[in-house]
Amino acid sequence: MIATNPVEVLQALIRCPSVTPAEGGALTTLQALVEPLGFKVSRMTATEPGTPDIENLYARLGDGGPHLMFAGHTDVVPVGDEAAWSHPPFAAEIADGVLFGRGAVDMKGGIACFVSAIARVIEEKGAPKGSVSLLITGDEEGPAINGTVKLLEWAKAQGESWDACLVGEPTNPDQLGDMIKIGRRGSVSGTVTVRGVQGHAAYPHLADNPVRGAIRLADALMHPPFDHGTDNFQPSNLEVTSIDVGNAATNVIPSRATFKFNIRFNDTWSAETVQAEIVRRLNVAAAESPLRPGRDPVAYDIVWSERPSHVFLTRSNSLISALSAAIEKQTGLTPQLSTTGGTSDARYIKDYCPVVEFGLVGQTMHMVDERVAVEDLENLTRIYKVFIEQWFANADA
Amino acid sequence: MIATNPVEVLQALIRCPSVTPAEGGALTTLQALVEPLGFKVSRMTATEPGTPDIENLYARLGDGGPHLMFAGHTDVVPVGDEAAWSHPPFAAEIADGVLFGRGAVDMKGGIACFVSAIARVIEEKGAPKGSVSLLITGDEEGPAINGTVKLLEWAKAQGESWDACLVGEPTNPDQLGDMIKIGRRGSVSGTVTVRGVQGHAAYPHLADNPVRGAIRLADALMHPPFDHGTDNFQPSNLEVTSIDVGNAATNVIPSRATFKFNIRFNDTWSAETVQAEIVRRLNVAAAESPLRPGRDPVAYDIVWSERPSHVFLTRSNSLISALSAAIEKQTGLTPQLSTTGGTSDARYIKDYCPVVEFGLVGQTMHMVDERVAVEDLENLTRIYKVFIEQWFANADA
Repeated sequence: MIATNPVEVLQALIRCPSVTPAEGGALTTLQALVEPLGFKVSRMTATEPGTPDIENLYARLGDGGPHLMFAGHTDVVPVGDEAAWSHPPFAAEIADGVLFGRGAVDMKGGIACFVSAIARVIEEKGAPKGSVSLLITGDEEGPAINGTVKLLEWAKAQGESWDACLVGEPTNPDQLGDMIKIGRRGSVSGTVTVRGVQGHAAYPHLADNPVRGAIRLADALMHPPFDHGTDNFQPSNLEVTSIDVGNAATNVIPSRATFKFNIRFNDTWSAETVQAEIVRRLNVAAAESPLRPGRDPVAYDIVWSERPSHVFLTRSNSLISALSAAIEKQTGLTPQLSTTGGTSDARYIKDYCPVVEFGLVGQTMHMVDERVAVEDLENLTRIYKVFIEQWFANADA
Repeated sequence: MIATNPVEVLQALIRCPSVTPAEGGALTTLQALVEPLGFKVSRMTATEPGTPDIENLYARLGDGGPHLMFAGHTDVVPVGDEAAWSHPPFAAEIADGVLFGRGAVDMKGGIACFVSAIARVIEEKGAPKGSVSLLITGDEEGPAINGTVKLLEWAKAQGESWDACLVGEPTNPDQLGDMIKIGRRGSVSGTVTVRGVQGHAAYPHLADNPVRGAIRLADALMHPPFDHGTDNFQPSNLEVTSIDVGNAATNVIPSRATFKFNIRFNDTWSAETVQAEIVRRLNVAAAESPLRPGRDPVAYDIVWSERPSHVFLTRSNSLISALSAAIEKQTGLTPQLSTTGGTSDARYIKDYCPVVEFGLVGQTMHMVDERVAVEDLENLTRIYKVFIEQWFANADA
């Protein structure tokens, strides 16, 4: 296996069926690819009671600074309807210049390109002066309890520290070079349960219809907007993603109504301040509900889901411009500096060093027939190579 | 069996386990009780494809006019948690002057009292000049497709016609004599489905969250009030009885949101005009939804449930005052002339003759330990007897 060829590296990785939480041979394959390049590889299994163990990999080339990290994941989402794929999802077949497979862009493709890029740097000029590390988890797509967050803690405990990080997630909406992610919005989810009193629909005054309260509270979360956006972020946005009562009898007033919501918030807020605002809005709406003349405030509970994702923004101009310049050089495009879309493991890495994200085109991620143009693999490898060279050159200056 | 004793008659009826749609022997028992009094009894089985057959009974004493009908049902609702009853629901046991059993007030008790009342009239003075009939269905509590509505059509087809009707449903909230029903609100139910576009919660502009539209439309049905009540009716009232989406993933915007509603409407409306108003409100809210800047109107479907119940009001002063006078004479109370609460089979009878409703105290209906004071059975029998005598005396005059 020639580690300088991203197509061959990617095919080898795709052929490892690593649907979270299964390692599927992917980290072992990666280890075998980078050890010959001089990387010292450690494998670390993260555990937590009640959740599956997850395998992670940390590989370091060189010692001392400056230290550049590449981060990502080898786990992939399920294939969905396997019969609907034009080519089997773990076969890594190429047809008309396009390589098909689960993980092609999200994100085994990014890993393959970086490995090939550093292999080409080493082949051309030798290892950079300083260190390059790979921080690769086996769970980014799943609960992620035993993923990047624990791998970082472990590495830090081993004495590791980094000056910058590039995450290889697929960041381009349409074509390679469109977009770098320089930050991510936070995310908080919750479930609100409104408690009423069951009764007969013909005797509403003897009951207390929780649907009225749920509508009022859900509306209060959606209006007014949380903010109107900031310099680097689109407006925060709250979606009520489900309302559920489960009452089939139209002559019965139910006793409970539940709704779920998710908010993507920008740097106007922290997870704590946005949760406080959500509770404030719910309490105001509960107290002044005109749907309930003469009644007590709406009775409700709120349960927050999982741990919140925190918002972040990278302010390292040197990191951003090194990447930007490499992209422009290879593609002729000036990438957008974006904070749109969902979240990523970069939100954990931000606590350790400046972090940016750039990878392949994400259109087909999580879908049937996830795929990548072979030409994109070559181009991304070249972008990464220029970036690595430029970043070390800047750090040296 | 002495048909003049309402306690014995009621015990015989309760001991027939006639949970809809089972006849359970109840109509057969009734037939055996009234034939010796001179009633000609017909049994009629109503059928409809896809629903259970239902037994019904029509009995007539005398010929020619004036013709008074007593209407009701022998079917009962299920017992619920049988272990929770203090006395078995079909045993008809008496304890401390209280008779326990499913149907005790809703409404085998009313039937027992009327049968005893007419038996006492016959015993004292002979059959009234004119006709008395019993129109008793085996399905009022269930789908009622094969109940009173078809029994009336059948009887009419046999050449029957009536001058007035008394329905023996339990109309008193607290004590015997509180309340006569002189009309009923209509009832219309429906299900609204809002159609959106599924997507990722972090990319709401690429999706179309139907929850927003559902909240907006449901709110428009509840505000403003449909009316503020009329001379004889409380305000119409719409309850949204369920909202359902079923989306457990807080990072997913769902594709559909559904809600159910029920409106109890007064004589401001007919079923047709209230349905038209509902659709008008939905269309206005769908078009002008501020939750959807720059988007097309909310896409929705509405499905009306079953057949609507029509509103009605009885304007026969002679009928109402004959019943009122009988109640006042026996109890000393002046009954309220009410249209509150749910609906009843009187809504079908109104198309054939004026109809009023008066029976036992309804507090325990549909509950565990449904029961009636033995004293109430005697008092209601006396009320019915005076009413029968007065009604025929008035009609004669």
